[in-house]
Amino acid sequence: MAMTLARGAAPSINARPFPVRRTPPVTQPAPIGILVSSDRASAGLYEDRGGPAILAYLTEVLTSPWQPVLRVVPDDREIIARTLIEMADTLGCALILTTGGTGPALRDVTVEATLDVCDRPMPGFGEAMRTASLREVPTAILSRQEAALRNRTLIINLPGKPSAIKTCLDAVFAAVPYCIDLMDGPRLETDPARIVAFRPRA
Amino acid sequence: MAMTLARGAAPSINARPFPVRRTPPVTQPAPIGILVSSDRASAGLYEDRGGPAILAYLTEVLTSPWQPVLRVVPDDREIIARTLIEMADTLGCALILTTGGTGPALRDVTVEATLDVCDRPMPGFGEAMRTASLREVPTAILSRQEAALRNRTLIINLPGKPSAIKTCLDAVFAAVPYCIDLMDGPRLETDPARIVAFRPRA
Amino acid sequence: MAMTLARGAAPSINARPFPVRRTPPVTQPAPIGILVSSDRASAGLYEDRGGPAILAYLTEVLTSPWQPVLRVVPDDREIIARTLIEMADTLGCALILTTGGTGPALRDVTVEATLDVCDRPMPGFGEAMRTASLREVPTAILSRQEAALRNRTLIINLPGKPSAIKTCLDAVFAAVPYCIDLMDGPRLETDPARIVAFRPRA
Repeated sequence: MAMTLARGAAPSINARPFPVRRTPPVTQPAPIGILVSSDRASAGLYEDRGGPAILAYLTEVLTSPWQPVLRVVPDDREIIARTLIEMADTLGCALILTTGGTGPALRDVTVEATLDVCDRPMPGFGEAMRTASLREVPTAILSRQEAALRNRTLIINLPGKPSAIKTCLDAVFAAVPYCIDLMDGPRLETDPARIVAFRPRA
Repeated sequence: MAMTLARGAAPSINARPFPVRRTPPVTQPAPIGILVSSDRASAGLYEDRGGPAILAYLTEVLTSPWQPVLRVVPDDREIIARTLIEMADTLGCALILTTGGTGPALRDVTVEATLDVCDRPMPGFGEAMRTASLREVPTAILSRQEAALRNRTLIINLPGKPSAIKTCLDAVFAAVPYCIDLMDGPRLETDPARIVAFRPRA
Repeated sequence: MAMTLARGAAPSINARPFPVRRTPPVTQPAPIGILVSSDRASAGLYEDRGGPAILAYLTEVLTSPWQPVLRVVPDDREIIARTLIEMADTLGCALILTTGGTGPALRDVTVEATLDVCDRPMPGFGEAMRTASLREVPTAILSRQEAALRNRTLIINLPGKPSAIKTCLDAVFAAVPYCIDLMDGPRLETDPARIVAFRPRA
């Protein structure tokens, strides 16, 4: 997976192994990152539909206080990586959802940028999202999307198409709140009519 | 995946991030690489059956002009890597299929050689091929086969056994022509009685 | 996968590409490693249940002579890595099963330690174990467990919970004896009433 890492990741952007613990006041809404990577959208040549689709999904599913942190950047591995770091380390996002840049085209580098800044992969997310997408379209195997952890932040790659975003999030979101719990992040609550957040009894 | 990369990949064989674009004349048949890695076959001690199986499959499925580029090499990581580079960069193959060297035996290093020369993994291929193979034989989980991109070339690892090759290609080939399209490669057409190439409407 | 490898693996702990072949006397029971990684268990603050669950499973399933090599260590990447090397290289384990340290918590680093000391991944194991676990609990996608090869040793990461250990081993164990065969390891026989070891005809 990370074949690109050996030569691609600058040491300065690596996750630190034991970071200072974020302890935001409980009353503060949880910041959640939404990163759109698209050359055309960032240049104003195209109206991005992925970011709004993620925003609508989270608004519909989450019942606990949260606030979106939205960024639209070009398909540039370094810029995407630095934006993810800003969202995770500076703005305190325990969850970041990216959209776009997961395919085989030469400019599709969001997955590589994600792995560049993460220390531990979460292979089950990519597997589950591709399995769900494959039920709808045979080209789902072309999606290179992954999820990975940067310290206490979960970063999940999503495709660019709104319908595919919904399919992917529906496939994994039940496990997201517990994942954030395990990293001592903010407690996310969901509307059980939409997604039942699964938290095993300890 | 790429744990071997950090120490295994010589810088000189790395994919260049922004390569010169291949623009072969449209009338030229698309070159497709078939790489057989087998110590015994390359020494003439064994008649390889994987290469002919791939050749027969492509002949049956593809209806657009193409020409095979066949190489039989020993199970040597460096030789496999350099042959893949030749096929991709010099001979202009937008698609390379390998056979052999995907198991757990010490000489099985085709997967590592593939990742050595690629810049971006395509995890959905390995997942889909193993899922399909698992329906036939429980030892399919031992196959380490992957697919990955070297610039504009898609490299897919296949097992050595002809019946397993067919199972794996049937599981993924519907998505291959569109993948090549997305990298501006030659347009591959298939016999819809055999494989319906899936191209989403833009 | 191995994004951590580029900076995490000390050269001294890397697998050698062509190791001396282990040829233990056939009458000697096959040593099988069981590695428990748990800060609390290694400090005596908690009674580990993963190690005993693996021991019970192997006792129930294996009918050929074997002996357990048990270690309980803290959730420390370096200590886990060195213990895996000891089990594989010094004690001659052709199979090592780990328990614990596969989740998203900051101290969960067993997967990274495993990949640190291995030369070739076995992605089909993680996929199959997560697929089986997902049928029981949606948070199975949070398990980062993998399997990989260090020379002639197969290392499989298992979760910490006994019921999850059984689910995972049931999903893959039929293929384990043949995998060990392919690496010229000791021949493992299973109780067919429990697990039918699948060995394809050559």
